[in-house]
Amino acid sequence: MLRAAQEIAGVLGEDAVTYDADVLEHHGHSDWSTSNSPGRAVAVVYPRSTEDVSAIARICNRRNVPMVPFGAGSSVEGNFSQPHSGICIDFAHMDKIIAFHPDDMDVVVQPGVNWVDLNSHIASSGLFAPMDPSPTATVGGMVSTNCSGTNAFRYGTMKDWVLNLTVVLADGTVIKTRRRPRKTSAGYNLTSLFVGAEGTLGIVTEVTLKLAPIPEDTDVAVAAFPTIRAAAAAAAALIRSGIPLAALEIMDERQMAILNANGSPAVRSRRWAEQPTLFIKFSGTTDAVRSDAARATSLLQQQQPHSIGDEGERSGRKGSNVGNGAVLHFARTKQEEHDLWAARKESLFAMTSMRPPGYAIWSTDVAVPISRLADMVDWSKAECGRLGLFASVVGHVGDGNFHVAMLYDPRDGEQAAAIARCVRRMMDRALEMDGTVSGEHAIGIGKKECLRDELGDQTIGVMRALKRAVDPKWVMNPGKVFD
Amino acid sequence: MLRAAQEIAGVLGEDAVTYDADVLEHHGHSDWSTSNSPGRAVAVVYPRSTEDVSAIARICNRRNVPMVPFGAGSSVEGNFSQPHSGICIDFAHMDKIIAFHPDDMDVVVQPGVNWVDLNSHIASSGLFAPMDPSPTATVGGMVSTNCSGTNAFRYGTMKDWVLNLTVVLADGTVIKTRRRPRKTSAGYNLTSLFVGAEGTLGIVTEVTLKLAPIPEDTDVAVAAFPTIRAAAAAAAALIRSGIPLAALEIMDERQMAILNANGSPAVRSRRWAEQPTLFIKFSGTTDAVRSDAARATSLLQQQQPHSIGDEGERSGRKGSNVGNGAVLHFARTKQEEHDLWAARKESLFAMTSMRPPGYAIWSTDVAVPISRLADMVDWSKAECGRLGLFASVVGHVGDGNFHVAMLYDPRDGEQAAAIARCVRRMMDRALEMDGTVSGEHAIGIGKKECLRDELGDQTIGVMRALKRAVDPKWVMNPGKVFD
Repeated sequence: MLRAAQEIAGVLGEDAVTYDADVLEHHGHSDWSTSNSPGRAVAVVYPRSTEDVSAIARICNRRNVPMVPFGAGSSVEGNFSQPHSGICIDFAHMDKIIAFHPDDMDVVVQPGVNWVDLNSHIASSGLFAPMDPSPTATVGGMVSTNCSGTNAFRYGTMKDWVLNLTVVLADGTVIKTRRRPRKTSAGYNLTSLFVGAEGTLGIVTEVTLKLAPIPEDTDVAVAAFPTIRAAAAAAAALIRSGIPLAALEIMDERQMAILNANGSPAVRSRRWAEQPTLFIKFSGTTDAVRSDAARATSLLQQQQPHSIGDEGERSGRKGSNVGNGAVLHFARTKQEEHDLWAARKESLFAMTSMRPPGYAIWSTDVAVPISRLADMVDWSKAECGRLGLFASVVGHVGDGNFHVAMLYDPRDGEQAAAIARCVRRMMDRALEMDGTVSGEHAIGIGKKECLRDELGDQTIGVMRALKRAVDPKWVMNPGKVFD
Repeated sequence: MLRAAQEIAGVLGEDAVTYDADVLEHHGHSDWSTSNSPGRAVAVVYPRSTEDVSAIARICNRRNVPMVPFGAGSSVEGNFSQPHSGICIDFAHMDKIIAFHPDDMDVVVQPGVNWVDLNSHIASSGLFAPMDPSPTATVGGMVSTNCSGTNAFRYGTMKDWVLNLTVVLADGTVIKTRRRPRKTSAGYNLTSLFVGAEGTLGIVTEVTLKLAPIPEDTDVAVAAFPTIRAAAAAAAALIRSGIPLAALEIMDERQMAILNANGSPAVRSRRWAEQPTLFIKFSGTTDAVRSDAARATSLLQQQQPHSIGDEGERSGRKGSNVGNGAVLHFARTKQEEHDLWAARKESLFAMTSMRPPGYAIWSTDVAVPISRLADMVDWSKAECGRLGLFASVVGHVGDGNFHVAMLYDPRDGEQAAAIARCVRRMMDRALEMDGTVSGEHAIGIGKKECLRDELGDQTIGVMRALKRAVDPKWVMNPGKVFD
């Protein structure tokens, strides 16, 4: 492996390779994740082009050395960990926007581009890339995990926004999966095969992203409910209604309490009801936003006939008591709209900032069919509650997808084991409901067994056969997704 | 091959196998398509279950006999032809809705279900499957060609509506690609790999389709333009505007003349301007439809400052002269809205009904990046015009995708060769523009060479390796997509 790194240094230059222990540690471990491996790469290499990556692959493949791509390091299932050591490929220097085609509504980028930077850069065109995972995430990792975020309810997931990929295969061969049409039915959909493959089939070195027009207007409402089940049931009703919401998120009473305690100053400027709360975003033309907001208000009111509707400037502009004992509040100003949504976006950071010293966070997610959402959320809350640890529910209920985050002391083996069992039961429960063990974090090293339970040996067998077909030496990010 | 058929009859029953020459002919040739092969299957078999299909596959794979799935026979690139003979598998008896989950907004169907029937069956739930290819099409074929149609501009293509597939592999193994969550990032996206694979990787025996809420309201406008370039340019401006149109279609002056001559009585009840025409559909809440229609009108007017806007009950409810010399007309009634859209939907049938005896129709499609759409349509019109044959342009400009249909005498070898050269030039031109040689008809036997030009040998090599991994004897619909 060290010889491979030296050979790479010979081709890419000494500056492109590091053996620094701190750098290796940073690239091999995540504080955000419980899915870590003790293995570390022997070197981190920094390619600057597709040709560099191809050279790295040729060298590693010849020498049977694992290649592990690294983007922002913000994935949570150990997707970039190095259980079999090898060479870690960091895309920090492949962070260029290669071509922006506003008239075609697409952009060609390198994998190291951060999505927030990308959207700032192209904002004046009126277009944006709609996926919104962690603000730190880079496009390569977003592709590899088939990420999503709060915008998925309206815009789908990463696979829906990738027009084509340039991929370096195990032996260094460079392929492009498609050209740039927005629609095609020409040949196998290799694009969608590489999206979500976590770098186990090839290394993505260029991505053409489809872009969407930035909506003319938006609005945000929050609705607090007496129980998590009532909130989830209301979410299911909103989904089923077909109102084209921009986003539909949930935070439980614990997450709301964290906002009061640890939110940013703007978020703390209001006193949040410490109740299960839906965050509802509307977007479109100003007319459409007004109309959709009115319909959502009316739907939530219909859930309980004796509720009091109190419509304001737009609809429900003042706080309204709506169905199911819920209280609905619409942003009164653009600033308030921003602050309401900021509360949702900063939830994870607010939680980690209150973590006791030495404590770790265990974050997981599942997705289930919509009709089972309330059951699943309710069950998960109860199950985690039994652990006696701090546990909160937050997530993308619009997609039937939510996260559970638990704070625990990793030095306490029993505690960690209890959480692991609880998470495993949660996965089993989601599968009983015909759901999935990973809504948006992929499988990594953390959920390989769960994936087998989800799909069965025959289906995993096909995935294995496909991998073997393009990576016969099993050197592309080995130990991830399946063994 | 005959022994395989006999063995299948032994397992499925004699009734499930036919050798009738007329039936074989019907299953081996399409009048809708120029991509036909002289080969014919030795038998057509009619499975009733996934188990039946698995038994067929085991027998055929053991005996090295090609298996060719057959749905409605409405594909146009020879996707179901049998160049290497073999067993044709007809899904006529696998036409059941297995499970409808309105609260989850999905439905599980067998591949022989017709999409129009499906939508009728579930209409009272307020949900529908949004893809709208040929009204004859069945779900299995829709999956295998990654079909779309006029709704793709709003709803995407078939790949976006398949939650999971049950697939019989070459050796008879049955796999399920996913469970039923609406969102997942668990493992390789096998669903999207089988969608559009044209039965070359496995045979689809069960499909879970995501459903969408039927929009509350719709509206239709038609806009006639002096030139095809002006129409295509206006389409590009509408796309770029981000107005959430339900559909954006184009028909050239020839197709419009056909409506006047051969349309259904309702369609002929109006005199159509024989000019290149955009068909624009709006859908959503009544408010959203009104607002979107007004914005579209205003955008078309802005294209030329001195145009006359004349807004009616909704917006532009009376005929309006808009930018670029165009005339915009909105439906005045729901009946008229229906008739306007019917004109678009019946265009192909209206054309074939005026075909001289013995003449055939050559239909092809391409898709290009939006900014190249006007160039591509204009170029295609001119190129086909040079042939001196009847040629028309119709299609889904909203996706940068359009069809060219030409009437010709297949007995005239020179004529057929001239069209083939013209179509080939059209493909080359689309590729120069970074487009695709097939927007929604897939590759079949008709466009294999074009696909190689589009993607290159390395990318086709990956497709080949993937096929070999799951179909080592190359018995699944051989001779399609690539050799």
